[in-house]
Amino acid sequence: MKRTSIWQGRIVELELLDDRWEVVRHASAVAIAYVRPEDGYLLGVEQRRPAVDAVTWELPAGLIDPGETAAAAAARELREEANLCGELHYVTQLYVSPGFTDEAVHLFELHDATPCAGVPDETEALTVVWRDPLEVWTLVASGILATSGVTLLGVQRALARRGTGGYRCGSSRRSRS
Amino acid sequence: MKRTSIWQGRIVELELLDDRWEVVRHASAVAIAYVRPEDGYLLGVEQRRPAVDAVTWELPAGLIDPGETAAAAAARELREEANLCGELHYVTQLYVSPGFTDEAVHLFELHDATPCAGVPDETEALTVVWRDPLEVWTLVASGILATSGVTLLGVQRALARRGTGGYRCGSSRRSRS
Repeated sequence: MKRTSIWQGRIVELELLDDRWEVVRHASAVAIAYVRPEDGYLLGVEQRRPAVDAVTWELPAGLIDPGETAAAAAARELREEANLCGELHYVTQLYVSPGFTDEAVHLFELHDATPCAGVPDETEALTVVWRDPLEVWTLVASGILATSGVTLLGVQRALARRGTGGYRCGSSRRSRS
Repeated sequence: MKRTSIWQGRIVELELLDDRWEVVRHASAVAIAYVRPEDGYLLGVEQRRPAVDAVTWELPAGLIDPGETAAAAAARELREEANLCGELHYVTQLYVSPGFTDEAVHLFELHDATPCAGVPDETEALTVVWRDPLEVWTLVASGILATSGVTLLGVQRALARRGTGGYRCGSSRRSRS
């Protein structure tokens, strides 16, 4: 396949494949879902995202550094963004938009969290905000809160675990209530 | 905010904001989840995705045409890709990767599906493949099957509705079995 480099930036590289497919090369990322046992709230961070011109609420997340494993990146991002350590369980991986970019995200879930001091990434301005996953789902579906796909996957899993989310458990039929 | 256009393509536009933020402009998209009532299988399409150099299995999806509503795009894509019509319910919206692109995806679920003839998009080579959502989840988590974030959201919802997915219903604790 013929590859023509159009632009090489700090975060993205743009390529044309076979003079036809516009492809954005982007580092892989990690995201971490953590549900606080005492109240079922989900850990998230708020930040201004210039690309979507909005303040988003997202799972703690970040790019994997060169030579770093996904699990190590997840542990580092958790310390940096939320001062938390604990047991990280790999959940799944996904492509954010396989039609045009190779960015993959590896999702982890945190268990047995303990506080630990992290050095914040100076290039980021983040605020930790705990939220009820059902509130997040409602606000996002209503267009009031902006978020990412991997965040909604974490939210949906938190709701499934709780047995809410508009579905009856143990039934193959959608609850209409 | 200062905007510098770097490149304008057919699918993506690359901009630099304030000489700093690399932003990929991309049309919004739709995706449609449909669970076949007779066996609980989820509708998906297989296609080669040059950006990730893989054949993916994804929910039927596509870009919203200029002037088109998300619901109209979802109905069109369902006809084009799967020859299906029916009642479309809006589920939610998400940004695929708000750190670098403004691409949003609107997720719908299809109910009361009926066959209807669609004119395929000649630029796409798709194969309809029905899959058990639990099988999809397992294959994707194992790295055997490649897919998108919005597809996994649809898969996770199908599993929650079925009451499986590694979670006990009605419990706030993760099943360890």
